[in-house]
Amino acid sequence: MSVKEIPDPALYTDLYQLTMGQGYFKSGLSKKQASFDFFFRKAPFSGEFVVFAGLADLLEVLDRFRFTGDEIAWLREQGFGDAFCEHLSGFTFDGTIRSVREGEVVFPGEPVLTVTGSLLSCQLVETLLLNILNFQSLIATKARRLRLAAGDCKLVDFGLRRGQGAGSVAATRAAAIGGFDATSNVLAGKRYGIPVSGTMAHSWIQCFESELEAFRTYAQLYPDSSILLVDTYDTIGSGLPNTITVARELEEQGHRLVGIRLDSGNPLTLSRKARNMLDEAGLDYVAIAVSDQLDEERIADLRNKTAPIDVFGVGTRLITGYPDGALGGVYKICDLDGNPTMKYTDEVSKRSLPGIKEIERVSDKDGFFLRDVIRLVDGRDSNKPDPKDTSDAGGNSERIPSERIRSTVMENGNALSHSAEISGIAEFSASRVARLPDKIKRLNQPERYEVTLDDPLVALMEQLQK
Amino acid sequence: MSVKEIPDPALYTDLYQLTMGQGYFKSGLSKKQASFDFFFRKAPFSGEFVVFAGLADLLEVLDRFRFTGDEIAWLREQGFGDAFCEHLSGFTFDGTIRSVREGEVVFPGEPVLTVTGSLLSCQLVETLLLNILNFQSLIATKARRLRLAAGDCKLVDFGLRRGQGAGSVAATRAAAIGGFDATSNVLAGKRYGIPVSGTMAHSWIQCFESELEAFRTYAQLYPDSSILLVDTYDTIGSGLPNTITVARELEEQGHRLVGIRLDSGNPLTLSRKARNMLDEAGLDYVAIAVSDQLDEERIADLRNKTAPIDVFGVGTRLITGYPDGALGGVYKICDLDGNPTMKYTDEVSKRSLPGIKEIERVSDKDGFFLRDVIRLVDGRDSNKPDPKDTSDAGGNSERIPSERIRSTVMENGNALSHSAEISGIAEFSASRVARLPDKIKRLNQPERYEVTLDDPLVALMEQLQK
Repeated sequence: MSVKEIPDPALYTDLYQLTMGQGYFKSGLSKKQASFDFFFRKAPFSGEFVVFAGLADLLEVLDRFRFTGDEIAWLREQGFGDAFCEHLSGFTFDGTIRSVREGEVVFPGEPVLTVTGSLLSCQLVETLLLNILNFQSLIATKARRLRLAAGDCKLVDFGLRRGQGAGSVAATRAAAIGGFDATSNVLAGKRYGIPVSGTMAHSWIQCFESELEAFRTYAQLYPDSSILLVDTYDTIGSGLPNTITVARELEEQGHRLVGIRLDSGNPLTLSRKARNMLDEAGLDYVAIAVSDQLDEERIADLRNKTAPIDVFGVGTRLITGYPDGALGGVYKICDLDGNPTMKYTDEVSKRSLPGIKEIERVSDKDGFFLRDVIRLVDGRDSNKPDPKDTSDAGGNSERIPSERIRSTVMENGNALSHSAEISGIAEFSASRVARLPDKIKRLNQPERYEVTLDDPLVALMEQLQK
Repeated sequence: MSVKEIPDPALYTDLYQLTMGQGYFKSGLSKKQASFDFFFRKAPFSGEFVVFAGLADLLEVLDRFRFTGDEIAWLREQGFGDAFCEHLSGFTFDGTIRSVREGEVVFPGEPVLTVTGSLLSCQLVETLLLNILNFQSLIATKARRLRLAAGDCKLVDFGLRRGQGAGSVAATRAAAIGGFDATSNVLAGKRYGIPVSGTMAHSWIQCFESELEAFRTYAQLYPDSSILLVDTYDTIGSGLPNTITVARELEEQGHRLVGIRLDSGNPLTLSRKARNMLDEAGLDYVAIAVSDQLDEERIADLRNKTAPIDVFGVGTRLITGYPDGALGGVYKICDLDGNPTMKYTDEVSKRSLPGIKEIERVSDKDGFFLRDVIRLVDGRDSNKPDPKDTSDAGGNSERIPSERIRSTVMENGNALSHSAEISGIAEFSASRVARLPDKIKRLNQPERYEVTLDDPLVALMEQLQK
């Protein structure tokens, strides 16, 4: 499955990756073995967790990462040297990647993914990797928050028209991973097997002599799948009465109107009035869909007030990850040639963790996640299966189930086989979120999830700071 | 010039465009002549204006808008009928587009762009059009605000790693239109001829035994273009002293260090300290670049306090259009078969303007924009050159210069020749912003720019509401 929106991965980068790359090349460093961690310092949306997404797309793009002749020629014009350009023209990504599974819940400061390979390989893919993982993880996290707010109601992505250009296709993929049921985005639906769904626009209504004729025509065309948009003129005065007329006509023909959509006005009062009118007309099966600037707070509020809404269509605020707009994930070198390294800048919050590390997740006996421990490991061992399936980390004398949550997903540039089926990733993700305690995943003022560093890692950091 | 990030334009749409399209087709409406306006109701960033961008990309994508055999087969599987699928397989966009020029400043409620063509053509391109124009206009507007804050300082886009996926390439294009000087995004630089620029990452520093060695190696590799990143360990204690050492070594060799970059800490105090240290060392030519979560407010504040900063690198908040994340542009039908139509929903702010319209811009005698008038025109006339070059609209007895700011950019599906050169669009845009009074373009609490409707338009709206 190709990420068609990134046709030119090699130049999809910041200039300094190439100037540094040439520097490593000329300094004889480019083949040294390096490791870089991908991590974020703060969860978005004032939350505590992130749903990791974008991995399958990243692996696909890395697999076909090449410099074209045209690109090499342009780099020469920009002043890059012959030897380096020659080297780039045969370049393929040679890295090994250990990562949590796509859809996993992860926390600030954790090495979610580590790239190990030649220094040049590691450096040249930084921007591409961050662009893909930061954005899809942002949207999957937003979608999960919306899902937590929406309970069992249906959630549909309506965002393409307000999305940030071509990234919108990947955003819809991430929304499905985060728990959305369907999308209006046809291309994303086709490519990723996400159910596509839609209603009608105001233009449809305006193209007929009357709203009633517009509804009737649509219902006759799609007698078993119509959702009528009722707010073009007067929701309660004309939209609902016309809906009832058409729904009854469908009933006489042995069909059922699927629903109505409210796209303006107060969704709480309008949905209640609409529900009453529909129920009184014997149309209790007609669903109510609502759109118009929804986010997790508005949805939670509507559901707290028991608004009779069955479907939420979410556009702008899902597809742009509003209000944050970005996950600030970074990619920092942690080891060069077996030597752990860290950035110990003045600004403590911007420091990085040195060495090769794994994440061990400890659960309680009911399966709820208790805490994560970041363990320093010998790089050569990290790929082996974890010998322990229990741990007594934390001073607890009971044996507590624990698991290493990262595995090798790419080896020396070759992606290991895995299923990129969105429904499977979404299912895994939901199963992990289900194991996150409510106090951690609640929308407002969640508690901090405990992430600790093991003693050898703390000792290494102290040693390096000297 | 192909917008490679949108390889599959026909399915880059909301499902309802296709279900409505099939409905028009089956109802015999699909060939009726329709007109749809693109407009927005509110300028982003609490501002008053929008810099219109994305037009050249839109025209390029519309020009190659086709349904592939694979797409048609998939639509059949989704239940679309044979006759409609057959029709789509030969479909090309047949519309005529009148639009303001790319880079123009436009205001809430104005019909910035109008598509006139078969109802099916108009409807099928809605989502694609909104996705391209909304996003690029958002970013061009953000970039212009940053440019207004930054005065003559250099502005460089550093956003790719935090951009919303593949849309980041278009965002960099829009940033250049809005007044950015350069970008770190190599692909956008190559494709659009935008100057590329960059410094170094912390990883470069960490790959050497010492910061001094890292600086020295880089400066020797790039003796005339080095910008050293000074905050890896201790900006004032090591970063600056090492910079001075290396700059002097370069001087001895007949070269000059270009600059330093500050990426953490307090940019006001650090830039002052750095400037002092550099000046005292006789290095007054070494520029100071600052990055780290900048936006127009922080830049304006730093410049008000006369921080000695020469270059601002702006990432996340430019590339995601933070904090708004989207321009809420809409696309509403205004005429069908010569009959003006409008959406007169309960929510007054969501109403649309009926009929074929043009925008007339009135300037004062110094060339500053005074107001825009939205005039109802006969559709057949709108394409002709404007007979008047002055106007007395507004009850002023003096003759005031005015111009119609829209022109035909695509005719029956054929794009008219125009230059898509970014530097030219950026120059035009700057010349238009220069004619906008300060009170309209100031960053905080701008005054409202006057946009009025002419009498025939008001009369038509009253008539339609009855």
